[in-house]
Amino acid sequence: MRAVIFDGNRLIVRDDVPAPVRDEGEALVRVRLAGICNTDLEITRGYLGYTGILGHEFVGTVEDADDPGLVGRRVVGEINIPCGECAMCRMGYPRHCERIRTMGMRAWPGCFADYTVLPCENLHPVPGSVRDREAVFTEPLAAAVEVLEQVHIRPSDRVVVLGDGKLGLLVAQVVHASGHPVVLVGRHEEKLEIARKAGIETALSGSPVLPPRADVVVECTGSPSGLGEAVALVRPRGTIVLKSTFHGEAPTNLSPVVVNEVTCVGSRCGPFPPAMRLLEGRRIDTASLIDGVFPATRAIEAFEQAGRRGSLKVLLDFGSDML
Amino acid sequence: MRAVIFDGNRLIVRDDVPAPVRDEGEALVRVRLAGICNTDLEITRGYLGYTGILGHEFVGTVEDADDPGLVGRRVVGEINIPCGECAMCRMGYPRHCERIRTMGMRAWPGCFADYTVLPCENLHPVPGSVRDREAVFTEPLAAAVEVLEQVHIRPSDRVVVLGDGKLGLLVAQVVHASGHPVVLVGRHEEKLEIARKAGIETALSGSPVLPPRADVVVECTGSPSGLGEAVALVRPRGTIVLKSTFHGEAPTNLSPVVVNEVTCVGSRCGPFPPAMRLLEGRRIDTASLIDGVFPATRAIEAFEQAGRRGSLKVLLDFGSDML
Repeated sequence: MRAVIFDGNRLIVRDDVPAPVRDEGEALVRVRLAGICNTDLEITRGYLGYTGILGHEFVGTVEDADDPGLVGRRVVGEINIPCGECAMCRMGYPRHCERIRTMGMRAWPGCFADYTVLPCENLHPVPGSVRDREAVFTEPLAAAVEVLEQVHIRPSDRVVVLGDGKLGLLVAQVVHASGHPVVLVGRHEEKLEIARKAGIETALSGSPVLPPRADVVVECTGSPSGLGEAVALVRPRGTIVLKSTFHGEAPTNLSPVVVNEVTCVGSRCGPFPPAMRLLEGRRIDTASLIDGVFPATRAIEAFEQAGRRGSLKVLLDFGSDML
Repeated sequence: MRAVIFDGNRLIVRDDVPAPVRDEGEALVRVRLAGICNTDLEITRGYLGYTGILGHEFVGTVEDADDPGLVGRRVVGEINIPCGECAMCRMGYPRHCERIRTMGMRAWPGCFADYTVLPCENLHPVPGSVRDREAVFTEPLAAAVEVLEQVHIRPSDRVVVLGDGKLGLLVAQVVHASGHPVVLVGRHEEKLEIARKAGIETALSGSPVLPPRADVVVECTGSPSGLGEAVALVRPRGTIVLKSTFHGEAPTNLSPVVVNEVTCVGSRCGPFPPAMRLLEGRRIDTASLIDGVFPATRAIEAFEQAGRRGSLKVLLDFGSDML
């Protein structure tokens, strides 16, 4: 089968990789469409030390599984494979499993291939009204939904989403869809325009637009300077949700966090069902976030496109008939 | 009257300062005993840009007030003077008032003087069984209690207090007094010994003593490296309470906070009544935290002592008869 592989040095596309074999409790999935995430790009720069088949955002069709009801279903899949037995799993946090395996990141092959394998309980059927190019956003959209899982946003709260990249645009839409007034603050007029089309108020970074400081700031800049900007935008005793990960250390002044008694909440992956409901209800504009769809054989080109400054979502087509 | 003043360049002790005059609603307090806080030391290095009479930890006797019931009472005083009208005051966070004045820090004279003035509602009578050298710890002890105000520590939680300075030793005792198992992690055997005497488990920083990571870590190192150490000690989805303030920026890697979905809570001043109850109930060993008591006239010497590396609490005696 075809597969997009990081060999520790570079990205390669092969067409002679043996298809994976499923274990008991697992499903064999034929990949239809996959999405390139910033994490994939970071892995090709050495992040996580992962080598193998890349990718963790996909929609596919179940080819084989113990449960005959699953076979033939179009599905998306949660990317974490917890052990189910460690302290964190028992505490109800399987996504923080001490022996976690993660699709395309840690001890589990990715989905940039014609076939991939996941435990059956990781799979979620895709409603017929949701097209592949929408369903492929379930995983990043779930990460956006996680903000609402972790933080209680009150009806009277003012929310600022900081950063107009893919994640910021999704988070702003999720918060907006939940009925909260939200302002997306970013540096790119053309990206802010996507949010405005969705009815979301926007402001250019640094413009003196937000006199009363926000109750909740969601930091999605992906930049080391993001926390400092977030601290300047949040009120005392307010909450900052931290979504950005980046390598290494960045100069940070945490004293305002202490003095203003701000709460900072780290936030990562999220739950698929509410994300799928948002897609099915057509509450999220994913179309405007797509920067290109490349056939799988042109994956190298697709990665180059995805890695360009200001690029939004780039998709890899492994054989979707419902793009 | 005598007063310890920072004039913007250096610390001076004068004996010809006019005594303050109280306004309506305020009390004139004769200072008995006062404590030097790290913040006072930082102010003499330029922090906050404050000039004037220093000091915000004190116990005194009310000389004059509208309420005759207050006159003659031994009191301690909350250090923030909120406006009562701004959005933060109305929201119930007077300590985060937008026009806040703070004793010895911002737009309000400090207590290192024979007399000081505060609004009557800032004052709390000291029970007769609490000596001056104990009562003077109410303000820093309230800051330690604030940890329990902000974070719900569950009976099954494991708590680590990081940093064996004055604040770390108070926080560890407060958490211990509330019945939670707590480990104080620090760098100084002689200070950890103070905690052990109080029945608190201790560990030297860097020793491989804490295999299961803590549910809650209270960061009291006062050092830029504190957050990184705290992140290494806390479990995924755990909570870090940030108590340290310091100048400028420090290299910080926040990615583990995001990946492990850690919550960081900034924490500053706290409530006096529970702190006073702890002192009255003799639940806190403050005696071991006192490094010296200097007569007010030797304040310069006292500041030198307080500024020495590893120094604990240094007190200034303005005329206590119940030391």
